Amino acid sequence: MYKQVINKLYQELKNIKYNGEIASYIPELATVSASKFGIYLADISNNSFGIGDFEEKFSIQSISKVLSFCLAYKNLGEAIWTRLGVEPSGSAFNSLIQIETNNGIPRNPFINSGALVICDILISILKNPREEFLEFCREASNNNKIYYSEKIAKSEKSVGYRNIALCNLIKSFGNIKNDPNDILDFYFLVCSIELSCKDLAETFLFLANYGKNPFNNNIILTKSQAKRVNAIMQTCGLYDESGEFTYKVGLPGKSGVGGGIIAINPNNYCIAVWSPVLNKKGNSCKAMDFLEKFTTETDLSIF
Amino acid sequence: MYKQVINKLYQELKNIKYNGEIASYIPELATVSASKFGIYLADISNNSFGIGDFEEKFSIQSISKVLSFCLAYKNLGEAIWTRLGVEPSGSAFNSLIQIETNNGIPRNPFINSGALVICDILISILKNPREEFLEFCREASNNNKIYYSEKIAKSEKSVGYRNIALCNLIKSFGNIKNDPNDILDFYFLVCSIELSCKDLAETFLFLANYGKNPFNNNIILTKSQAKRVNAIMQTCGLYDESGEFTYKVGLPGKSGVGGGIIAINPNNYCIAVWSPVLNKKGNSCKAMDFLEKFTTETDLSIF
Amino acid sequence: MYKQVINKLYQELKNIKYNGEIASYIPELATVSASKFGIYLADISNNSFGIGDFEEKFSIQSISKVLSFCLAYKNLGEAIWTRLGVEPSGSAFNSLIQIETNNGIPRNPFINSGALVICDILISILKNPREEFLEFCREASNNNKIYYSEKIAKSEKSVGYRNIALCNLIKSFGNIKNDPNDILDFYFLVCSIELSCKDLAETFLFLANYGKNPFNNNIILTKSQAKRVNAIMQTCGLYDESGEFTYKVGLPGKSGVGGGIIAINPNNYCIAVWSPVLNKKGNSCKAMDFLEKFTTETDLSIF
Amino acid sequence: MYKQVINKLYQELKNIKYNGEIASYIPELATVSASKFGIYLADISNNSFGIGDFEEKFSIQSISKVLSFCLAYKNLGEAIWTRLGVEPSGSAFNSLIQIETNNGIPRNPFINSGALVICDILISILKNPREEFLEFCREASNNNKIYYSEKIAKSEKSVGYRNIALCNLIKSFGNIKNDPNDILDFYFLVCSIELSCKDLAETFLFLANYGKNPFNNNIILTKSQAKRVNAIMQTCGLYDESGEFTYKVGLPGKSGVGGGIIAINPNNYCIAVWSPVLNKKGNSCKAMDFLEKFTTETDLSIF
Repeated sequence: MYKQVINKLYQELKNIKYNGEIASYIPELATVSASKFGIYLADISNNSFGIGDFEEKFSIQSISKVLSFCLAYKNLGEAIWTRLGVEPSGSAFNSLIQIETNNGIPRNPFINSGALVICDILISILKNPREEFLEFCREASNNNKIYYSEKIAKSEKSVGYRNIALCNLIKSFGNIKNDPNDILDFYFLVCSIELSCKDLAETFLFLANYGKNPFNNNIILTKSQAKRVNAIMQTCGLYDESGEFTYKVGLPGKSGVGGGIIAINPNNYCIAVWSPVLNKKGNSCKAMDFLEKFTTETDLSIF
Repeated sequence: MYKQVINKLYQELKNIKYNGEIASYIPELATVSASKFGIYLADISNNSFGIGDFEEKFSIQSISKVLSFCLAYKNLGEAIWTRLGVEPSGSAFNSLIQIETNNGIPRNPFINSGALVICDILISILKNPREEFLEFCREASNNNKIYYSEKIAKSEKSVGYRNIALCNLIKSFGNIKNDPNDILDFYFLVCSIELSCKDLAETFLFLANYGKNPFNNNIILTKSQAKRVNAIMQTCGLYDESGEFTYKVGLPGKSGVGGGIIAINPNNYCIAVWSPVLNKKGNSCKAMDFLEKFTTETDLSIF
Repeated sequence: MYKQVINKLYQELKNIKYNGEIASYIPELATVSASKFGIYLADISNNSFGIGDFEEKFSIQSISKVLSFCLAYKNLGEAIWTRLGVEPSGSAFNSLIQIETNNGIPRNPFINSGALVICDILISILKNPREEFLEFCREASNNNKIYYSEKIAKSEKSVGYRNIALCNLIKSFGNIKNDPNDILDFYFLVCSIELSCKDLAETFLFLANYGKNPFNNNIILTKSQAKRVNAIMQTCGLYDESGEFTYKVGLPGKSGVGGGIIAINPNNYCIAVWSPVLNKKGNSCKAMDFLEKFTTETDLSIF
Repeated sequence: MYKQVINKLYQELKNIKYNGEIASYIPELATVSASKFGIYLADISNNSFGIGDFEEKFSIQSISKVLSFCLAYKNLGEAIWTRLGVEPSGSAFNSLIQIETNNGIPRNPFINSGALVICDILISILKNPREEFLEFCREASNNNKIYYSEKIAKSEKSVGYRNIALCNLIKSFGNIKNDPNDILDFYFLVCSIELSCKDLAETFLFLANYGKNPFNNNIILTKSQAKRVNAIMQTCGLYDESGEFTYKVGLPGKSGVGGGIIAINPNNYCIAVWSPVLNKKGNSCKAMDFLEKFTTETDLSIF
C-alpha cells in the first residue's frame, strides 16, 4: 500500500515549486539543485521502497542531533537529564534567552544548544568521539559507506558565529565541561554527515523497531529508551514547527537545513524525504507537504 | 489487564505524600482534601473500570480548554488557525511576551491566551454560548448531570487579574472581537465545570474513538479532526511540562489545576486521574506519576 | 538672548514637514492640525517669551506623569521607592516583560506602569484625588483655568486595553492596592489635562526653581527633591528616546503623545514646545529638533 | 570647600563595612584588600586634592570604555552612531537579548556589547590600536606611567566566555567587521589598564573642561562632543544603576568592577573614588555612598 501512495504523491508533488529558499549560508549547501526530491521508506519487516533521488547523499545537518543524542543516552541513561531538558523550545530567537533564564540548561537535545551539550558529553565519555560516533551511525545503518564531510564542517565553522556564541554562553554557566573550541569542531563534524534517503531511513529504523537494530537484532536502545527518543522527536523535532508537524503529520520526526526530514511510525516503518527548498522555519516545504499527505492517505498517524 | 495494573498502582501510590501544593488562589479549590485519589478508565469497546474517588466531582479547570476548543473547531474547521497557532508555548512567564511578539496570536488553544480567543470565537458564533457549551459536554458524555459552578467562576474572576491582563492585551492587538469582560465571564464559567473521573473519561472518550461518540455513534469530530486534537494535546497539553509528559507517559493528555489529568490512547481508551497536590508546573504529582507507571507497565504508549 | 534664538529657530522650523504621524488612537487627538507649533520659555527671574501657538491648549498626556509623581513624592518622600524604581526602561515592548521580571515593580514613574502605581498611591493617600490633583496643578501654575478633558479621558479608556492589561498585571503582583478600574479612571483623567505651552512652562517652573513656586515662593518640593525629579526626567523622560534626548538636548525633559515636550534648565528656565507630529518613538519630531538646536545655539545644556 | 567635605566624608565612611563582594572571577581582582579607599578631585583651575589610597593603582576595567569611546568618537564623529546607540540598556541579562532584538546594534558604548563594537572600530581605523589607545590615555592624563596589565587581560580572556559569546553574536549580525578573537584580545587589554584615583581624575579632566586638555590646552574633543560624552555617561554610565546614580549623585559617571567610579561636574571638576567592595549591580558600595553624600553636602549636582 505504502508503495502506491508514495508513488502517487511523488508524481503529484514532483514538479511543484514551493516558495522558499535553499540554505545558503555556506557555499556547499547553496549549490544543491532545488529540484532534488527523494523518498525512501523502510519497514521493520524488511520491506522497503524508494523513489526519485533517494540514493543521492545530502547533508543531513540537524537530523544528526538525534543520532548523537542516542549515543549519549545509550551511555548515560536517565542521568543525562541533569544536563538538559525535554521541553519544546520555541523560536531560534529564544534559544539564547532560554540559556539565560534556565541557567545554561538547554530545553531539549534537538536544538543547537542541547546538541552542543550532547557533544560535550560525548567528548567527555568517549575515547575517540569522531571515530566512535561515525561507527555508531555505520552500525545502526549496517552500512560502512557513511562519512563526514570535513569540507562542510570546516565551512560551517568559519561562519558559525551564532553557534560559537551559544557554546560560550553555555560554558559561562558551567554546563560545557570541555574547551568550547573542541565542542564546536565536533558539533560541526556531526552535522556534516552525508546520507541518502535510503541511508537515513535505514539508520533510523531501530527507532521504529523499539531500539533493536533490524539488520542484526543488536540492542541499540532499550524499548523504553527508543519510545522516549520518539517522544522527544514528537515534541521537539522540527524546531518551532514541531507542533505544526505533530498536528499535520502525526509522527515523530526530525528535520535538517539540508532539506531532509525523517519520520518514524513506531513498530512499523521509518520514512526519509529530501527536498532542499526550506520554509521560513527552516524545514523542507516539499517534505513537510509530502508527509502530511502521506499520513492522511495511509491513515496511519500515531494519534 | 488494565484493571489489574490500575488496581496495583492505586494501592502502591495511595498513601504516598508528594511534595507539592493544592491550588489555593481561591478558597473553593483550597478546601479539597489532599488525599483524594481517583482513577477511571473507559475504552471504546464499552469496558470501564474505576477505583478510589472516581465518582466524586472536582473542578476540571483547564481540562475544559480541550472541550471548548473542540466545539469551536467543529464549527470553524481549519479556518480556526487564523486566530491562533498549534505550537507549544513554554512557561506561563512567556505567555504575555508571546502575545507581544506574535501580535496577539496565542501559540495554541490550551494555554490561557488561546482559550480566551476560543471563548471569543464561541461567543461570536453561538447564540447562547453558556447553554450550548454545557449541552456539548453533556452530549459528549451522555450525561445530563454536568454543571458549571457559578460560585467557583465568580471567585476566580474576583482574583483573575492575570487573565484580565491577558485578555485585554490580546484585545489591544485586535484578536478579541467581543467585550473582554464578556469573554472573561464565559472563560471562567467554562473552567468551572465539575466532573468526576468517570464523567471526565466518558466525556473525552470520543477523542479515543476517532471523533465518534461511543454512546450513540454521533460524529462529534471527523476522524482527522479528532487525531489533530490529540496531536495538540500531545505537544501542548501540560503547559511547560508537555515535553516531560510526552516523554514519560507517551499519550496525549490535558491537566487542570484542580488536580485532574486526562489521557487518551487513540483507538483504545481514555483514562482520567485525579489527585489535588500539584507540582511547580501546576500538574498533579500523583496523577503524573500514576500515568507514567501505567503506560510503562501496560507497555502501551503511542510511541 | 533666548528670545532671539527662539524667534530665529521658530521661523526656520515653522514650515518644515517632518515624517511622522499625529496620534490617532482616539478621534480627539487625531483632529489636531499637524501644523500647530508653539513655544514658551519662562525663567525663574520672571522673564518669559512665547511664539506661535503658545496660548492654545492641547492634551499634555504623559507630561502629566511628572506632576502626579511630584504630588505623590511630596507626600511620601523617599518611602515611595518601595513601590517603583528610577531606572530607564527601554521600549514599550519591554513594559509588560519588566513587570513580570521585576515582580510587579515598575522601572520608573514616567512609564505607564509607574504612573499607574502613582495613581494607586494618590488614591490611597488623598481624600479627593481628582480635585486635589487638579488643585495641585493650578497652584503650581498660579492659574485656575486648568481643566481635565472628561471627553478625552473617556475616549482613551474606551480603547485603552493595553493600559488595562498593564494595570491588572501589576495588580496580580499585589503592587496595585485599589480597584484597577478606579486606578484606570483616575489615570486617564490625569492624562487628559489640557494646557497651552504657556501654562505648561509656568506649571513646571518650580522644577527649574529648586522646588519653590516662583509665583508665590511656596515650597512645592524641597531643593533635593526637585533636583531628583529633574534627574529622573533626564534618564526616563522620553520613553525609549531618553538617551537620545539627553545626548542631543542635554536637559531634563518629558514628552507626551499630544506633541508637547517640556524641558528644564535647573536654576534657570523652563521651556515648553508643542508640535503634534510624532516620530516612531512617540515624541514630537519638531519639538525634539527645536530643542536640540536651541541648546546648541544657546550653548546651555547641563553637561 | 571640596577639601573639607571630602576629608570629613572620608573619615565618616572609612571604617564602614558594606554588604557586598569584591570581584572574584579572576584571581588578580580577588586579592585586592577590601579596605582600600581612595579619593581624588581635580578641578579645571588646577586645584586638586587626594586622600586615602588615592595614589595606588587599581584595575579600572569598564571605566576604560569611556576612553576607548572618546578615541573612536574623536575619529568618526557622529558617523559612529550607525554602529551603536545611546539608550540605557537595563540589566546584563538583557544584553544578549537586545543584540537579538536590535539586529546586532548595541544600545550604547558603555555596555560590553557597545565597547566590543568600539574596539572593532578602533582596530579598523588605527594602525597600532594597542599603542595608540595607550598613547591617547597618556596624553589625556599628561602622564607616561600608564600601562596595561597583560596578566589581567590574559586572565580575563581565559574565563571571558560571556564576552566571547557576545562578540560572536554581534559578529553573526555583521556588526563586528574584524576577527572576533582580535576584538576580544584588544577589549580585554583596554579593560586591564591600571590607574590610581589621581591618574583617573586627571585623565578624565578634559571631560569637565569641555573637551580641552587642561594640562596643555590641546583639543581632545570639541565642546559639543565632550558634553555629549557626559550626557551618555549620565544615562548609561553605571549599568542598570544609571538611573539610581543620576537620582542620588546627579553627575555623569562611570564605574568599573575594580571598584572605581569617576564622576564629572562639567566646567568644574572631576572626581575619582575607589573602594573594591561591589553591590549586586557591580558598582562600588562605598564610592556610590561617598558620591551621593558629596554632591548633597556641596549642593553641586548638575540638576
